[in-house]
Amino acid sequence: MVSGNATLAAGRLRIGMVGGGPGAFIGGVHRICLAMDGQFQLVAGAFSSDPAKSRQTGGELGLDPKRVYATWGELLDVEARLPADQRIHAVSIVTPNHVHFGPAKAALERGFHVICDKPLCITVEEADELERLVAKTGLRFCVTHNYTGYPMVREARNLVRSGRLGDVRKVYVEYLQGWLSDKLEDSGQKQAKWRSDPKQSGACGAMGDIGTHAANLAEHIAGSPLDSLYARLTTFVPGRLLDDDGMVLFKLKNGANGTLSASQVCVGRENGLMIRVFGTKGGLQWEQEKPNDLQVWWKDKAPELWRPGNGWVDAEAKTLQRIPPGHPEGYLEAFANLYKSFALAIRGQPDISAPFPTVSDGLAGMKFLRACVKSSKEDRWVGV
Amino acid sequence: MVSGNATLAAGRLRIGMVGGGPGAFIGGVHRICLAMDGQFQLVAGAFSSDPAKSRQTGGELGLDPKRVYATWGELLDVEARLPADQRIHAVSIVTPNHVHFGPAKAALERGFHVICDKPLCITVEEADELERLVAKTGLRFCVTHNYTGYPMVREARNLVRSGRLGDVRKVYVEYLQGWLSDKLEDSGQKQAKWRSDPKQSGACGAMGDIGTHAANLAEHIAGSPLDSLYARLTTFVPGRLLDDDGMVLFKLKNGANGTLSASQVCVGRENGLMIRVFGTKGGLQWEQEKPNDLQVWWKDKAPELWRPGNGWVDAEAKTLQRIPPGHPEGYLEAFANLYKSFALAIRGQPDISAPFPTVSDGLAGMKFLRACVKSSKEDRWVGV
Amino acid sequence: MVSGNATLAAGRLRIGMVGGGPGAFIGGVHRICLAMDGQFQLVAGAFSSDPAKSRQTGGELGLDPKRVYATWGELLDVEARLPADQRIHAVSIVTPNHVHFGPAKAALERGFHVICDKPLCITVEEADELERLVAKTGLRFCVTHNYTGYPMVREARNLVRSGRLGDVRKVYVEYLQGWLSDKLEDSGQKQAKWRSDPKQSGACGAMGDIGTHAANLAEHIAGSPLDSLYARLTTFVPGRLLDDDGMVLFKLKNGANGTLSASQVCVGRENGLMIRVFGTKGGLQWEQEKPNDLQVWWKDKAPELWRPGNGWVDAEAKTLQRIPPGHPEGYLEAFANLYKSFALAIRGQPDISAPFPTVSDGLAGMKFLRACVKSSKEDRWVGV
Amino acid sequence: MVSGNATLAAGRLRIGMVGGGPGAFIGGVHRICLAMDGQFQLVAGAFSSDPAKSRQTGGELGLDPKRVYATWGELLDVEARLPADQRIHAVSIVTPNHVHFGPAKAALERGFHVICDKPLCITVEEADELERLVAKTGLRFCVTHNYTGYPMVREARNLVRSGRLGDVRKVYVEYLQGWLSDKLEDSGQKQAKWRSDPKQSGACGAMGDIGTHAANLAEHIAGSPLDSLYARLTTFVPGRLLDDDGMVLFKLKNGANGTLSASQVCVGRENGLMIRVFGTKGGLQWEQEKPNDLQVWWKDKAPELWRPGNGWVDAEAKTLQRIPPGHPEGYLEAFANLYKSFALAIRGQPDISAPFPTVSDGLAGMKFLRACVKSSKEDRWVGV
Repeated sequence: MVSGNATLAAGRLRIGMVGGGPGAFIGGVHRICLAMDGQFQLVAGAFSSDPAKSRQTGGELGLDPKRVYATWGELLDVEARLPADQRIHAVSIVTPNHVHFGPAKAALERGFHVICDKPLCITVEEADELERLVAKTGLRFCVTHNYTGYPMVREARNLVRSGRLGDVRKVYVEYLQGWLSDKLEDSGQKQAKWRSDPKQSGACGAMGDIGTHAANLAEHIAGSPLDSLYARLTTFVPGRLLDDDGMVLFKLKNGANGTLSASQVCVGRENGLMIRVFGTKGGLQWEQEKPNDLQVWWKDKAPELWRPGNGWVDAEAKTLQRIPPGHPEGYLEAFANLYKSFALAIRGQPDISAPFPTVSDGLAGMKFLRACVKSSKEDRWVGV
Repeated sequence: MVSGNATLAAGRLRIGMVGGGPGAFIGGVHRICLAMDGQFQLVAGAFSSDPAKSRQTGGELGLDPKRVYATWGELLDVEARLPADQRIHAVSIVTPNHVHFGPAKAALERGFHVICDKPLCITVEEADELERLVAKTGLRFCVTHNYTGYPMVREARNLVRSGRLGDVRKVYVEYLQGWLSDKLEDSGQKQAKWRSDPKQSGACGAMGDIGTHAANLAEHIAGSPLDSLYARLTTFVPGRLLDDDGMVLFKLKNGANGTLSASQVCVGRENGLMIRVFGTKGGLQWEQEKPNDLQVWWKDKAPELWRPGNGWVDAEAKTLQRIPPGHPEGYLEAFANLYKSFALAIRGQPDISAPFPTVSDGLAGMKFLRACVKSSKEDRWVGV
Repeated sequence: MVSGNATLAAGRLRIGMVGGGPGAFIGGVHRICLAMDGQFQLVAGAFSSDPAKSRQTGGELGLDPKRVYATWGELLDVEARLPADQRIHAVSIVTPNHVHFGPAKAALERGFHVICDKPLCITVEEADELERLVAKTGLRFCVTHNYTGYPMVREARNLVRSGRLGDVRKVYVEYLQGWLSDKLEDSGQKQAKWRSDPKQSGACGAMGDIGTHAANLAEHIAGSPLDSLYARLTTFVPGRLLDDDGMVLFKLKNGANGTLSASQVCVGRENGLMIRVFGTKGGLQWEQEKPNDLQVWWKDKAPELWRPGNGWVDAEAKTLQRIPPGHPEGYLEAFANLYKSFALAIRGQPDISAPFPTVSDGLAGMKFLRACVKSSKEDRWVGV
Repeated sequence: MVSGNATLAAGRLRIGMVGGGPGAFIGGVHRICLAMDGQFQLVAGAFSSDPAKSRQTGGELGLDPKRVYATWGELLDVEARLPADQRIHAVSIVTPNHVHFGPAKAALERGFHVICDKPLCITVEEADELERLVAKTGLRFCVTHNYTGYPMVREARNLVRSGRLGDVRKVYVEYLQGWLSDKLEDSGQKQAKWRSDPKQSGACGAMGDIGTHAANLAEHIAGSPLDSLYARLTTFVPGRLLDDDGMVLFKLKNGANGTLSASQVCVGRENGLMIRVFGTKGGLQWEQEKPNDLQVWWKDKAPELWRPGNGWVDAEAKTLQRIPPGHPEGYLEAFANLYKSFALAIRGQPDISAPFPTVSDGLAGMKFLRACVKSSKEDRWVGV
């Protein structure tokens, strides 16, 4: 049933944003999603490395100009000194990859909970440091592998976890897009530009941008970390500085193996994240573009189509939806589920056991990328 | 591109709500949707005919207790006397059908814009009166035939309007649900109870609840009002007081004809609203449960799948989406599109020519229901 | 498992064909299908009303020229006088509608089993006479409502019959094509020409050609004859002599009701026969263009996708397939299933209880058409 | 248009069969398919290594007992000495893999055209020898990579070949089945038994049985041979002697790369052969279980669904279908297309340029398997 912001009475949590200035994509997504369930109110921001642009966005959002900052450093410093009933509870980091680690670390050090875009940072070492800081501070840290926020993804994970599919043998995951089939970065398109710039993106292009989502989804649903892999990264578009395509064979620690494909040169594909998992007793398939369908196969009975909101879905999936069966929820609602779970965790009311991807998932992503680069260079299977 | 509440700078419009107390479904939907694009802020409400329940909901929503009212009459009277910079701009009516006309009329008379759930009211006479009041006051009046808020529905309408499908010949529309296959109203389930009570719903059950959506969608996409029809209303569940199923053959004023099916006893169907339109040169199909797919057929070339967010969709559809292709938006986003368009209209900045269903659509719905009841009783084709 | 003509040892049955000359569509289908399972051998024919054309087709088929006849009368007369070990066992009638009754009657009178295209004939009276003749002679008579030959159609019928869906309430059936959206008959296209000629087709166009298939499918799967209906027949293409579109509301004798749409002006639709049936406990959907999928809905559990060849499908469906799951069989295989069942019935070895549509189904089709014409003219609900 | 065996006048070609005795699957498929278009008549056979079983099958098929042989050697020897107007034109080899090379070689040496199941044989050396023999004798040799017989596969190949998709970059192909998820070979099931026996299957299990189909399809549609690959073969079911799963990364000679997955332990998957190809300008997808749908993506316009039988499909695809759009043809029709093309080639009337997979495709398959085994053992990328 739609709560319609029923939790508002408990008071909205105050949040500040790093990034998300003019031309940003994901910043706007975060702003819609943090507010959707009435858990957060955006009260502060350092929206751009250009102070004028930061002010512009702050103004458009109706923020108190005093809380629109020129840099993320200033944001964190000033907010940390505000009285407890005014200062932000948490910070949302929505910058390009190379500006994740700095503000995340500083935020934790100042006692702020953090919700940060993926991939977590640039190196495994940075990620390790953040994980240690989180453990030390006891703060909440969410990495927005937002696809785990879909009810049917959570249902898939719980179906595997329940043992009903038997022991997992195979995982096929792919994330295919077409929007970088040409050298879009030369056109000045902001999204393309930073994603194909090693200084801002890190060692990987497509594999970092979308491959980490695929890897996270595989680990999330199959219920096991990656063990080792063989990868081949390719740059198809001439002159591009990072991979725009990658193919990976992998093993999970639970003994399953599988393939992971991530590509941004698949002309015509929009946002084609898809996963299939097969165990000894059954299998499942989920596609992001049809997110309310979870296809389930069995050995000795008819395949089933699991859909959210029905009486027979798992309790956890029920916490992730707002409206009845057949009223499709989508990307924004799934993304908002992470914010809602993050808020409940901050409030000490987590409603489910593992409500959102954490800094450890972010660290796993960095290890995955490191292994992909190494395997692709050395032409051999490597440990993750 | 996601605006992320970019319009907030203009200041949020203040809105009050009638209905939407404990156990309501659509009230929560309205609350998420009015806030999604930062256009409205809910500041007042009369959420239930039971003042205690109204206070409970107001409290959960964190409203100023002084603006949580015991009755809709009090809400409208008190708000009308508040200073212009405090009082609500608009009222959102989300009560059962029999409590639409009263508050809608009173709101218009006090100068408030109105957004009201469907069906508009109980009788054609009431609807006529509201239409006259709207014309007289010049206020904005939106009837939430929310399915017209989907980008691909708007695209479908514009495809027909462009003439590319030729002259419309056939319209097939159906709205099939299964949730009332048993006598759920006896269980005390609130949604089932009022919908099957003639005093609260009016002369029709399923045909009023979902058939009016189907009729509105047909008129909206085919671009022509209903001319006449032959209907057969049926009550399948023993003891139910209103129809739970209806079948209609109809003619549109543009010469097309078609079928309309609305049923709430189709076991297993969730929210199966579907429409197909065929003209002399092509055809289209849209299904609510896969709302981002618009299937288009042509006489001499391959069928196409139109999807929102792509460069080749119409400008109007582009105004109705927030995120890039392949990131599915759903029911809430489509519903929020009506609120956004309603807000822009109030602000005098309508971004498109016919941005939302109006009181006239609501009146058309009442005429449709009147014709259904008459035809079903008299076993003959009747004018709408 | 593929039998690969394993029954050949029993000797092929000899069959003669009426119709199916140059330019025919369905004649060629019959020839492939009668041979597919090794049950029949085509040994004689009167392929055209033009003897030269009949000889041409006979020659192409490698028939003994002595058994290629100038008229169907000659075929039946001469064959009836051949020794029992040479003369045909059965006759296949694949002519336009107005040349069904004559050869069917004459064939029965001469002791030949008959397999005849649909609709059975032109009038209810003719159909009545054929039914009486079949009863009197004890011969086998199959009317090729070929869609009942699909394994998943048979599975659907048996699912309803088993009671697992509860009492049937709703039946939605539609048969939408687009190939007659223009006045194709003026181009000389043979299929279009005779279908739109009242002298050859009878009183109905689209409703006779494809509406009878839809009606038969509804009765077959829902397990109940039509009781009464309200119909509206339309001719959309200017100058066309018969309906190219029809819409029907109907009641079945078991108390269910539903809609039937048949149209040949739905641009872009190929051969869109689709049926949905809903009972008090569950529902199903089958689409001819995806014939190996049977979608099944339940009240309290996930929807299922039933597919042929799996261990859990009904025994009867298993008799109708040749190859393992996932190896799609299609239109020709389904059509051939009627020939195979017809042969087994002739041999006295029917493997299932109601293996093929009979003269009584053909008669039901004629009554359906008579009711459609009457209701459409008189604008009222009429008995079938 | 359905030809209905129109070519019969030219006289059926006589064919003998090696294999296909009791319990066989593919033998029955071949028998239906060789006869479907009236091109071949089965007149001789050595159906089993057990002469009694061979006689049993020959009897069931109604063959002249004198032409039912105890061994394939006898079949070839005796037939070769028959008068030209009686002896077979061609031999169809449908035995387990290890009995392909012997009869194929002997048949060629005796002047018979050959149609042989896949994989072609056991070693690259054998395949090389067969290719040389074909070149030397000028006889026709078809290897039944039957999936290339589907109209929409041929359409896909021609779409790539036309250059409309631009230069091919990515190929994703997978062939997933679930039927060997348990140790079915222990049950005595004949199909499982020989496929998992290295003596009968060769060095590969799943990769030989279905992986070669996937590799062939990739080369066929992408229009380029495999260049090199990295493979990982796995045996999931304990005690099984051959791989039941394999994953391959590959490069084509045209510069594209991709993934190939073949597995028989994907519980619930029936016969899931699927391919996607992306070029610089567009992409396509084809799934064997929905064989009449070819999905086509473009850079700047809506995705399209190409379907057989429509005016706008390529001429070659039109030669491969029998019935109009929307009347689904399937696996048997596609398989029969190879027989038809093989017959036309024997008659010297090939209707299209590359009508069926030849001995060279079979050789390519053997090289693919050799590379898979080598790469999987040596953990490195190897040339094909």
